[in-house]
Amino acid sequence: MNSIPATVRWEDGVDGHLVLLDQTRLPGEAVELHCRTVEDVWQAIRRLAVRGAPAIGVAAAYGVCLSPGPRGLTFDSVLAACDYLATSRPTAVNLFWALDRMRALARACEGVADGELAERLLAEARAIHADDVAKCAAIARHGADLLADLPPGSGILTHCNAGALATGGDGTALGVVFELARRGKRPHVWVDETRPLLQGARLTAWELVQRGVGCTLICDSMAAEVMREGRVAAAVVGADRIAANGDAANKIGTYGAALLAAAHDVPFYVAAPANTFDLSIASGDLIPIEQRPAAEVASGSGPLTAPAGVAVYNPAFDVTPPRLIRSIITDRGVIQPVNRDTVARMLGRSR
Amino acid sequence: MNSIPATVRWEDGVDGHLVLLDQTRLPGEAVELHCRTVEDVWQAIRRLAVRGAPAIGVAAAYGVCLSPGPRGLTFDSVLAACDYLATSRPTAVNLFWALDRMRALARACEGVADGELAERLLAEARAIHADDVAKCAAIARHGADLLADLPPGSGILTHCNAGALATGGDGTALGVVFELARRGKRPHVWVDETRPLLQGARLTAWELVQRGVGCTLICDSMAAEVMREGRVAAAVVGADRIAANGDAANKIGTYGAALLAAAHDVPFYVAAPANTFDLSIASGDLIPIEQRPAAEVASGSGPLTAPAGVAVYNPAFDVTPPRLIRSIITDRGVIQPVNRDTVARMLGRSR
Repeated sequence: MNSIPATVRWEDGVDGHLVLLDQTRLPGEAVELHCRTVEDVWQAIRRLAVRGAPAIGVAAAYGVCLSPGPRGLTFDSVLAACDYLATSRPTAVNLFWALDRMRALARACEGVADGELAERLLAEARAIHADDVAKCAAIARHGADLLADLPPGSGILTHCNAGALATGGDGTALGVVFELARRGKRPHVWVDETRPLLQGARLTAWELVQRGVGCTLICDSMAAEVMREGRVAAAVVGADRIAANGDAANKIGTYGAALLAAAHDVPFYVAAPANTFDLSIASGDLIPIEQRPAAEVASGSGPLTAPAGVAVYNPAFDVTPPRLIRSIITDRGVIQPVNRDTVARMLGRSR
Repeated sequence: MNSIPATVRWEDGVDGHLVLLDQTRLPGEAVELHCRTVEDVWQAIRRLAVRGAPAIGVAAAYGVCLSPGPRGLTFDSVLAACDYLATSRPTAVNLFWALDRMRALARACEGVADGELAERLLAEARAIHADDVAKCAAIARHGADLLADLPPGSGILTHCNAGALATGGDGTALGVVFELARRGKRPHVWVDETRPLLQGARLTAWELVQRGVGCTLICDSMAAEVMREGRVAAAVVGADRIAANGDAANKIGTYGAALLAAAHDVPFYVAAPANTFDLSIASGDLIPIEQRPAAEVASGSGPLTAPAGVAVYNPAFDVTPPRLIRSIITDRGVIQPVNRDTVARMLGRSR
C-alpha cells in the first residue's frame, strides 16, 4: 500500500458522491467504498464500514448531500435523508449532532433554489469535516500537554479505535498518541484487540504500524496482567456519547478497562470533541446502548466458534462513570475533575 | 451427536492406547483422537487437544503407559516418557503431580517383570483417573453447599473451561454448577468466551448446552457490564496451579475478572482439587507462565485479523491473589479465608 485512502472523503463537487475507506476489510485490504445514495451511506454506517463517533457524523453529513434522484436535492428530501440516516446507529451522538446541523442549514435555506441548496449543504458538510480535523488537532495538543510528564517510552493502553479511522482528522485518543510521538516521547501503545469486532487489532494496530508508533497487541483479557506488570502509565480511549454528568459511553469493554486501571492506579483518560457531549442527557443510564447481532460473538471471524443457537449478549457500548475518569480531553481543553459542574463550565458555550 | 465421547479414556487393556476427545475441533465436531505413542500424547497436550489441569494430568498418566516399541515398557523407558511429557506445558502442576506418581510407581516396581510393570502402570493411571472423578464429585458437593444460599436462577460467571472437558470427571468450577442444577437451583451461567482460544465459547458453552444448563455467552470485555447490571451473583473458575499462599494461576483473564468481581461485590471462587496446589512454591510470582504463539491472537479463528507482523503479547495464564478470592473450593473442603495458614491447614496432609 503506497498511499492510505482517507477515512471519509467527498469526490467531485456538488454532483459527486461519498467515498469511504471500507473498514470491514482492514487490515487485509485498504479498499474504498463508493456511496452514491443515502441508503448506501446508511448501510455503510450500520455495517461499520465507517465507524467511530466523529467519522460517523462526518459521513452522515456528506450523506445528506447525495442527490435522491434526477430531481436533485429538495428541502423535503434533505429532511427525509436526515431522519433516515439518524436510524443507522443509536449510541454515538455525533451522528445526531451532524444531522441537526444539516437540518438547520436546510431550514435556513428554505426558499433558495434547489441548486443552491445542494451547494450550501455540501459546504456545510465540508465545514463539519474541517471542524472535525481541527478538533482532533486541538485534542491532540491538549492531551499531549496533559501527558507531558510521562517518561519517554511510556506505555499507553487504548481500547477500540479512536484514531484517524474513527474521525475526519487524526483521531482523538490516538491523536494524543500521535502528538506525543511527534514530540519525541516514543509512546508504546498496548492495544486491546476489542472483541467482538476487533477494532483494536484490525484498525488501531494497523494505524500504529502504518505510522511507525510502537505497539503491542493484546486480548482484552490481558489488560489487567499488563497493568499489574507495570507496563501501562496511562490509558486513553475515545467516546461515543458523554452525558452532562461526565458518564462516558464508549465501546464495550471500556468500563472494565477503567476499573482495571483504577485498581492499578493507572490514570484513565477519555478524549472526545465537544460534539460528543450530550448535555440533554443527565447521566449515562439514559444513553441508548446499541445491541448487536449474536453472530458477531459466535462467529466473529467466519467459522462458528460457539455451539449453534447459544444465547449471546452483545451490547456494543458500556458507560464509564466519572469517578473512574481522571480527565476528559476535549478540543476546548481538559475537564478535570470530571463532574456535572466542570462539564457544564467547559461545554456550556455554544458548539 | 447422540453420545458425547469421554474427555480422556484408555482403550483395550494393557496393550491398548489413549483416546482423547479432540477439543480443538469442538464445538463443530466431537471427534476422537487416538494416541498410540508418547509423542502423540505430548503433541495432544501441547496443541490443546486435551487441556485443563486435571485432564492433562490424567492424559499424561495414561501416556506413560504407552509402549515405546516392540520391547515394551521398561523402567528406563517409563522414566524417559515422564521426563518428556513434563516438557509439554509448564504451568498446570497436575501434569507434574501425575508424572511424579507414575515415576514413584515405576521405582516401586524395579525388579518386577516388564510385563507386570505395564499392568501396574496402567492400574496407577486408572487410579489417577478414578481419583480425579472422585475429586470432581467432592468439589461439586462442597461448592454447591457453599453456594446453597444463592436464590434459584442466580447468575454465575465463569472464565475459560473448568468442566468435564477439563478433568477426568465432571469438572471443577462447572462441577459446582452442575451440582447446583441437580439440586434444582437453576443456575444461569455467564460464559466469558475466553480469548484467544475461546475455551469459554467453544467448550464451556458447549458443555452447558449439552446438559441443558442455562447460559449466555459474552465477550470477556462484557463481564464488567454484566456485573454492573446486577446479573452475576457469584463467579467460579478453575485453576492450573495454586501456590502455598493461595495465589491461583488460571487462564489469562481470570485476574481481571476477579478485579471486576471485587469492584462489584461479587464473590469470586476458585474450584480446584488438592493436586492443583503446589506447596513447594511460596507465591504466584514463582509459577512459570506459559507464553503462547502470537498467531493465537493475530489469527485466532483462521483469517489474519491484525496487521502482519505486529507485536503480540500472549501469556496463557495470570495469577489471582488471595485478597480477590473469597474461597477456594477443594475436594477436601472449602478454604476461607484464603491465606498461607488456611491453605497449609487444608493441604498439609499427604495427597
